[in-house]
Amino acid sequence: MTSDGLTEAVVASFDGCGDERLKAVMGALVRHLHAFAREVELTETEYFAAIDFLTRTGQGCTDTRQEFVLLADVLGLSMLTVGLAERKPVGATESTVLGPFFVEGSPEIAPGGDLANGAPGQPCLVIGQVLDTEGQPVAGAVVETWQADEDGYYDVQKETAEPQNRGHLTTGADGGYSFWSVKPVAYPIPTDGPVGELLRATGRASMRPAHIHFMVTAPGYARLTTHVFAAGDEHLDNDAVFGVKPSLIADFVNHPPGTPAPDGTTPTRSYSTVHYNLILAPA
Amino acid sequence: MTSDGLTEAVVASFDGCGDERLKAVMGALVRHLHAFAREVELTETEYFAAIDFLTRTGQGCTDTRQEFVLLADVLGLSMLTVGLAERKPVGATESTVLGPFFVEGSPEIAPGGDLANGAPGQPCLVIGQVLDTEGQPVAGAVVETWQADEDGYYDVQKETAEPQNRGHLTTGADGGYSFWSVKPVAYPIPTDGPVGELLRATGRASMRPAHIHFMVTAPGYARLTTHVFAAGDEHLDNDAVFGVKPSLIADFVNHPPGTPAPDGTTPTRSYSTVHYNLILAPA
Repeated sequence: MTSDGLTEAVVASFDGCGDERLKAVMGALVRHLHAFAREVELTETEYFAAIDFLTRTGQGCTDTRQEFVLLADVLGLSMLTVGLAERKPVGATESTVLGPFFVEGSPEIAPGGDLANGAPGQPCLVIGQVLDTEGQPVAGAVVETWQADEDGYYDVQKETAEPQNRGHLTTGADGGYSFWSVKPVAYPIPTDGPVGELLRATGRASMRPAHIHFMVTAPGYARLTTHVFAAGDEHLDNDAVFGVKPSLIADFVNHPPGTPAPDGTTPTRSYSTVHYNLILAPA
Repeated sequence: MTSDGLTEAVVASFDGCGDERLKAVMGALVRHLHAFAREVELTETEYFAAIDFLTRTGQGCTDTRQEFVLLADVLGLSMLTVGLAERKPVGATESTVLGPFFVEGSPEIAPGGDLANGAPGQPCLVIGQVLDTEGQPVAGAVVETWQADEDGYYDVQKETAEPQNRGHLTTGADGGYSFWSVKPVAYPIPTDGPVGELLRATGRASMRPAHIHFMVTAPGYARLTTHVFAAGDEHLDNDAVFGVKPSLIADFVNHPPGTPAPDGTTPTRSYSTVHYNLILAPA
């Protein structure tokens, strides 16, 4: 069996697949995988290095860390998949990567509540509305949010007893939402696993610009998975996971102690605010 | 960042890689991976199914089972890599897949010894010479061999206390080698893991034709990783891992009880023999 005939034989091995979509996906995967190996004349040493790398990537996954998502992120596959799924009307908030730190079952937060839950950082009020593309409020939308703290760590990286900087709340009749967390900072993606080895071996940067994650769901609307990025961050042009879109950048404004906040409170220490509307496309 | 610009950005992220080979491999990997995702318009559901599949494949690997090698095998990547590395003079034994069941540190067997070590099956005498491409004997070659038993299982699948059907020996001055094991049978590759799920989901066969593995090393010669396949096996044209080459097929001959064997013994039960020379290419 020659190398050329081999690819045809492997693609043909899926001929009996009753699921036409799966057959097409597997056939295309085999053709592109083989084309890659032929183009670079993949050596057996590299083959075994890849096997070892992928094995350790799988074994590095836990309930709270998804190293394969991180790998897909740094190879741009996550953002490409996001882009392929994006069929949105003008005006809807764009999507970006889910990232490896989303956790099911976050705590429910009262409107305006504090989800920092003791995480270090400058207090930050995040406030906005969930709207449709006509500008009408979406009541009853569930807004999930999660982010790193001032040290650049998500709660699940610190193994805190309770969730920090993570929660969900439901919009009221005006579509409004607000919560207190901490001002996000730029941070490196986790580099203590195989993906970190890859970044170091290839001389790649590991920083993500400061951001807060959102996942918004509401009946009748497409689920929105996105971030808000902090304007002015030095890593906006060099995100390790290629997640930045200009429309997702907003100003985080600093306020000195004693400045009245938009939610009616008057913090006694300095804080920041960001106004960010989340605009949903129809399902 | 559009989907097209995304691929360019990811490839460019490797520009600072000081290892030119690694830079080329990663750039090609990203281009082919993205081309695959674009061609099939990979959905987010499929993306997450792939993440889950790869994660479980990594987590299914143990010291004695390499599920990622098995995945590469059924996708033909292992045989393609073997083919790309094959730069052999005419007459040298061809290579085939290593497979997932090779184990370092097999027992040393005396020439003519029995490595079945109690594994079920009809006794089988494997006998031949390690030669160079000029037909000259290669003395001091180390012949590693491993295979499944009559039930289709390797020792590591059965978690036997001691190795079975696995060992290594060293050729004498005439390049000769021989050992007793059991007659190999066709068997399914392990289907109790993610790769088995893939085969079932795509309607693919899981059988490998009967074979014995060899890995032969000798100073001054290229390492040979190959099989001998049993002529007449019904799965020769449908090997789940695409490992069959016509030159690797040999006759396993049955003998009734009391027939003198080529090693001078006269077994009291039926047995089979296979003559198989292993011809090494220069390093």
